[in-house]
Amino acid sequence: MKSTAKITIFVLVLVFVFGAAYAQFAKPDEAVKYRKAVMFLIVQHFKRMGAVVQGKATYDKDAFSANAAAVGMLATLPWDAMTVPGTDKGDTTLSPAVFENPAKFKKAAQSFETATAMLADTANGGDLNAIKAQFGKVAQNCKSCHTNFRKK
Amino acid sequence: MKSTAKITIFVLVLVFVFGAAYAQFAKPDEAVKYRKAVMFLIVQHFKRMGAVVQGKATYDKDAFSANAAAVGMLATLPWDAMTVPGTDKGDTTLSPAVFENPAKFKKAAQSFETATAMLADTANGGDLNAIKAQFGKVAQNCKSCHTNFRKK
Repeated sequence: MKSTAKITIFVLVLVFVFGAAYAQFAKPDEAVKYRKAVMFLIVQHFKRMGAVVQGKATYDKDAFSANAAAVGMLATLPWDAMTVPGTDKGDTTLSPAVFENPAKFKKAAQSFETATAMLADTANGGDLNAIKAQFGKVAQNCKSCHTNFRKK
Repeated sequence: MKSTAKITIFVLVLVFVFGAAYAQFAKPDEAVKYRKAVMFLIVQHFKRMGAVVQGKATYDKDAFSANAAAVGMLATLPWDAMTVPGTDKGDTTLSPAVFENPAKFKKAAQSFETATAMLADTANGGDLNAIKAQFGKVAQNCKSCHTNFRKK
């Protein structure tokens, strides 16, 4: 198969897997800024929950639920911005692995979305032990995806 | 009344109005970065809806609903970060008016939250005329709050 045909199929697969992500950003730089903003916000709310889980901050059910809800919603946002072709170059920690293995990346993204949605549900229940367990699963998702898809 | 006493009362009122916002950010710079990230994301999703409302992009119910849901959720986030004392200085467009009239600012914030939550609901209904009307109300909220609380 000629390499142009290979590239065409690869792009078609990307569009199939990720939808019209590219069209949503006026410029690639905007996609990079977008995903950095989302990840920064996720980290902020994750840290607040982490402090509670580690016993460094008092558990307040409403506050924890609000943080978990924020992360659950934010977790649905960054993926389109991470799949804009060429945005693994420049001032970014996005690994080329995202484009080399889009199906694996999509699976990791979905796993994170599921884990954070479950954390939001668990947080509403108010059982701190259950919350800690689910928080740990979210943290595992962070680590696994960063290992595979973030530059060292 | 001595000025130190005045300041103490002012700070107590701020804490009463805005809760323990200050405690959520390790440094004032983090609050500035946080609110900028939220506002950038709101603008991105707002622009996508704006293109549809202005007839520049095709109306897709699910996509519009997703954008409206994102704005509705993001609209709940930035206020604590906007009320960290001293963060109207430096590289920011936050006006000192936020600290001079906290009750008015809180009202504007709540009005924006309400308008965006209603837009998310309206978007789920799929009636484009109703959506356009509610989108207009959200835009009015943006403009009004920026006029009063954003530096020129």
